[in-house]
Amino acid sequence: MKPTHIEHIGIAVKDLEAAIKFFESIFNIKCSSIEEVKEQSVRTAIFPIGETKIELLETTDPQGPVGKFIKKNGEGIHHIAFSVNNIESRLEELSKKGIRLIDKKPRKGAEGLNIAFLHPKDCFGTLIELCENKS
Amino acid sequence: MKPTHIEHIGIAVKDLEAAIKFFESIFNIKCSSIEEVKEQSVRTAIFPIGETKIELLETTDPQGPVGKFIKKNGEGIHHIAFSVNNIESRLEELSKKGIRLIDKKPRKGAEGLNIAFLHPKDCFGTLIELCENKS
Repeated sequence: MKPTHIEHIGIAVKDLEAAIKFFESIFNIKCSSIEEVKEQSVRTAIFPIGETKIELLETTDPQGPVGKFIKKNGEGIHHIAFSVNNIESRLEELSKKGIRLIDKKPRKGAEGLNIAFLHPKDCFGTLIELCENKS
Repeated sequence: MKPTHIEHIGIAVKDLEAAIKFFESIFNIKCSSIEEVKEQSVRTAIFPIGETKIELLETTDPQGPVGKFIKKNGEGIHHIAFSVNNIESRLEELSKKGIRLIDKKPRKGAEGLNIAFLHPKDCFGTLIELCENKS
């Protein structure tokens, strides 16, 4: 298990359009795509920066994971995503090492990536996502 | 103002040595340096991943910024750092755009970088650091 790079950093926001406008106008970075990920009850906006990305997340359901996060913590950094190869093997390896998996099997995330989240209680309070780009 | 890349992601932890051991053994990434930044009351551990880094932060003072963060939020992702050129000009530009600056002038951070933090209330709850490597 070794991440090839940091795929993205997820930031939870209340108003996706306002946040897109903010990051574009203040930091001069460009939103490359907006996508709804129904399974996670979010709309996402992607901003490539070098080899990584910022992923803004707006909930479409107050009871979804990002809705609950904002209710508890307010807006802010939500997770960090490591790009890996062979995600299924990586999940098996982490599980054997005692890391609890939120997603025991990879599922589809934004941009068609295969993704899985690890339990933050086992990762020093940090919500870590593994991503694999099979295309 | 356009970040060249994401310089690092800062993660607040209670026990630096335990967290270093965790990231090395679980994710097979290597700590490249440990450093105390007295002005910020932190000890830091750096893990390069591709063109960016993870920066673990342990407070040396419960009243320091990372000590207060952990008391309020527990361990977890603390900030994101953008690498920029001409940091003084970038701070002036952001201030003119209405972004409040925690550091009005750059100061020395870990690894000898010139750094400055922006106010999270003006950045969708996200603590953003600007970094310039002048060496």
